[in-house]
Amino acid sequence: MTTRTDQQPEAAADEGTAITTDGTATAGWAHHHVLDLDDFSRDEIEIVLNTADRMREILDRRIARVPALRGFTIVNLFYEPSTRTRASFELAGKVLGADVVSLNASTSSVQKGESLIDTVRTMRAMSTDAIVLRHGSAGAPYLAAAHTEASILNAGDGSHAHPTQALLDLYTMRRHVGDVRGKRVVMIGDIAHSRVARSDLWGLAAMGADVVLCGPPTLMPRGLRASERPAHAESALPPVTVETDIGRAMEGAHVIMALRLQSERQQGGLLPSLHEYATEYQVTAERLARTHPDHLLMHPGPKNEGVEIAGDVAAGRHSIIEEQVTNGVAVRMALLYLLAGNEPATASDVSD
Amino acid sequence: MTTRTDQQPEAAADEGTAITTDGTATAGWAHHHVLDLDDFSRDEIEIVLNTADRMREILDRRIARVPALRGFTIVNLFYEPSTRTRASFELAGKVLGADVVSLNASTSSVQKGESLIDTVRTMRAMSTDAIVLRHGSAGAPYLAAAHTEASILNAGDGSHAHPTQALLDLYTMRRHVGDVRGKRVVMIGDIAHSRVARSDLWGLAAMGADVVLCGPPTLMPRGLRASERPAHAESALPPVTVETDIGRAMEGAHVIMALRLQSERQQGGLLPSLHEYATEYQVTAERLARTHPDHLLMHPGPKNEGVEIAGDVAAGRHSIIEEQVTNGVAVRMALLYLLAGNEPATASDVSD
Amino acid sequence: MTTRTDQQPEAAADEGTAITTDGTATAGWAHHHVLDLDDFSRDEIEIVLNTADRMREILDRRIARVPALRGFTIVNLFYEPSTRTRASFELAGKVLGADVVSLNASTSSVQKGESLIDTVRTMRAMSTDAIVLRHGSAGAPYLAAAHTEASILNAGDGSHAHPTQALLDLYTMRRHVGDVRGKRVVMIGDIAHSRVARSDLWGLAAMGADVVLCGPPTLMPRGLRASERPAHAESALPPVTVETDIGRAMEGAHVIMALRLQSERQQGGLLPSLHEYATEYQVTAERLARTHPDHLLMHPGPKNEGVEIAGDVAAGRHSIIEEQVTNGVAVRMALLYLLAGNEPATASDVSD
Repeated sequence: MTTRTDQQPEAAADEGTAITTDGTATAGWAHHHVLDLDDFSRDEIEIVLNTADRMREILDRRIARVPALRGFTIVNLFYEPSTRTRASFELAGKVLGADVVSLNASTSSVQKGESLIDTVRTMRAMSTDAIVLRHGSAGAPYLAAAHTEASILNAGDGSHAHPTQALLDLYTMRRHVGDVRGKRVVMIGDIAHSRVARSDLWGLAAMGADVVLCGPPTLMPRGLRASERPAHAESALPPVTVETDIGRAMEGAHVIMALRLQSERQQGGLLPSLHEYATEYQVTAERLARTHPDHLLMHPGPKNEGVEIAGDVAAGRHSIIEEQVTNGVAVRMALLYLLAGNEPATASDVSD
Repeated sequence: MTTRTDQQPEAAADEGTAITTDGTATAGWAHHHVLDLDDFSRDEIEIVLNTADRMREILDRRIARVPALRGFTIVNLFYEPSTRTRASFELAGKVLGADVVSLNASTSSVQKGESLIDTVRTMRAMSTDAIVLRHGSAGAPYLAAAHTEASILNAGDGSHAHPTQALLDLYTMRRHVGDVRGKRVVMIGDIAHSRVARSDLWGLAAMGADVVLCGPPTLMPRGLRASERPAHAESALPPVTVETDIGRAMEGAHVIMALRLQSERQQGGLLPSLHEYATEYQVTAERLARTHPDHLLMHPGPKNEGVEIAGDVAAGRHSIIEEQVTNGVAVRMALLYLLAGNEPATASDVSD
Repeated sequence: MTTRTDQQPEAAADEGTAITTDGTATAGWAHHHVLDLDDFSRDEIEIVLNTADRMREILDRRIARVPALRGFTIVNLFYEPSTRTRASFELAGKVLGADVVSLNASTSSVQKGESLIDTVRTMRAMSTDAIVLRHGSAGAPYLAAAHTEASILNAGDGSHAHPTQALLDLYTMRRHVGDVRGKRVVMIGDIAHSRVARSDLWGLAAMGADVVLCGPPTLMPRGLRASERPAHAESALPPVTVETDIGRAMEGAHVIMALRLQSERQQGGLLPSLHEYATEYQVTAERLARTHPDHLLMHPGPKNEGVEIAGDVAAGRHSIIEEQVTNGVAVRMALLYLLAGNEPATASDVSD
């Protein structure tokens, strides 16, 4: 990867002006797929977020429906169960007038790889324009993208990436703190197994945030554990600060993101117990006292209240967890809209 | 609950006039959710049935589609499998131009309660207007309603309630016998475990029918078995007649409603055998001979022909079982339409 | 069945003219259901294929949506899992503006037959116009059709029939070789258990192709194994040539159709091993050398590459496997359109 400085040239500070109504704006948008954020520049992320702003305006209308994607066909291809992400994409498509077909695929087939390729090619042959893919294996969306002309949107692949979640996180932060450059964003919990954390890292790095990862050493990704860091970190993940002490991690934080702790981790021997985890790393009101007074509390959901986050703070005034869900629809609308070859939205070109 | 007299004041006899085209009619409609019928007055039920009349007119058109709920988002959230109720709600929404997202939720999560609350809040954050909820636990829709601004429609919760089924039953009766006041309505079978029976009881009580419950004592709800009745009945269920002899129950009945007998009851030791049940309580042509000559035969479906009902009578000329299904779509359209804040429909305001 | 000569009278050579724009064309179309192709005449098949031509034109538009079936309700009732066929029907319906409800039915019910009848009657009572039915039991669609006024489209019933697949195969052949009369069409593999092969046989016989079946004797349908043929074949299947040697089967073939070999066959003792099957019957470049130089390679999907077909030929220039998928949407659109009572489509009467 390039260094943080390379990714955020000062000259890009005016990229907001790149989004104009004269139709010349998407010069910076070259994506046919959304597989992860490691190949998104700051400019490209800004294009998504600016388009999401227009989509939020549509969502806030009394009748939140426009025909912008009429005739556009989206297939939700989910090899793992999901309610929220699937519903979010389905609604995003329907608000824009697209047709959405939801398929719950089985992974029981012996030749999973072949089956995935065959399925995406088949869906494309049915004139599918975009395939929203969730799969248990890291890299599956890349395999799919290599074998179809349809746009592939990664809706979560194993522990690898979840780029639309990261974009909605960035969008939600921007609505509250504006530019995240230099803002302290703390992610707490099971970083190692979190596709959300991994994509967030790339996005936050591109946008210039100061990222702090916090959690027990056994749940830190390889190459980011304190002792190993200098040797491997740069090639695999963007530069971040690792902090195992939650008190120090919280110090002055603008954004605190608690990650879902999956109970499998305990069975896997990476944690002595959920209770012990909660004692050491639960995001509580007491611990939040050391953050910035206007801090924001985020969570990708679904929450385990009482484990990684206390119920009172999840429902408290700093929590923007539900707004993340709303923004998720807007960001996915923006991505579908852009992948369909549209210019970044303006008030006029998406109205009905 | 209030007494039957309180629920059906004579002064309300002219509530039909409450539904007019001048937009002042829904003064009597104060429901944001449909959880059960125990909090529906006769006036409110009449509003639903009158609106359903307009919806039937739409269904009878050559192209049965109107844009009345364009931009309205309905989520079918089913924690138990269902084909007919789910399809009925999905079609009701689509006929009115709403978008319907169907989610088959899993109950495998450890913290079921939390998961339900989290899911309904998430769906609401995606701008869902109405959530149609089926759940294995009695009371789940109340929990959901307490935690979301979306309208909750109870599509069956455990053995507790199934209010939209009861409303379609009332609507179907009204189309054939007019006012059910004083009409003898006999429900036969497993009353104790039937959410349909429970909701029907409330609705029929509000409308003033003479309700007779018939079945083996082991399948009668607690508090309604003959010996226990005076002590507990009034607080839990509206006043009814309990009759274990099916011959006496049938005497002069206007409406006979056979309930589905689930084979689990036999395993649970509540019945010696399905065969024995059929011998004692099956609705047969012979037994129907003692009813009113214009009697109606109803069943909430799916039927076990040869168990609770004989095949010839289920398909006979008094059977209105399939019409119940058709009316189910109309009644659900009416509820969605009213919950969306519309005035009771008139020919003009729902036309396309 | 009638003989091949009866089915393809020379006088019918001008049936192309039966499809005109003056609305008198569907005199030859008398189907309310599509259960199998054994009751489709050559004229009726031509009507479907000509209508599919118009549907392909719609699919090739930039915005491939027309309101031809607005208000038409389709229920996908699948008792067996399916992604491609279900998606194909769902998209076919949506392109034409119909509403599609997809139900994954369970076969766990004890009284399967009753449950199917009850379900289709219930769906009809909800104003369903067409039911697309896949079922594990041969004949289930006939049972359904006998009990409902909705149109039943057989989407695969056990090992019996898959008529829409056969129609898309015929349509795809016609687009490449024109009239299949006298063309040599070779089907290779597990003919005995293939509902695709069985329906293809009827369709190809009606259209006058020279059909060759090739595969190990254990996978040939009863009555078509060489020694048994004269005694039983005519009553059960149309006249075909059976050839166990793939080299001789390939000789001069215009169309080669490889069938999916299901691994259950090996467990069932009908095959020594998949490897041995592949050695004897896999469609390879070497074996295709003996076919007609302009031969076409087809497969109903999903493919087991390396078993019944080699990967290079499946992806080679003679392969029209993906076009079959695209044509599947067009043919299903045509069937829905015709079943809805429309005249065969012309450019004007389906435009939006």
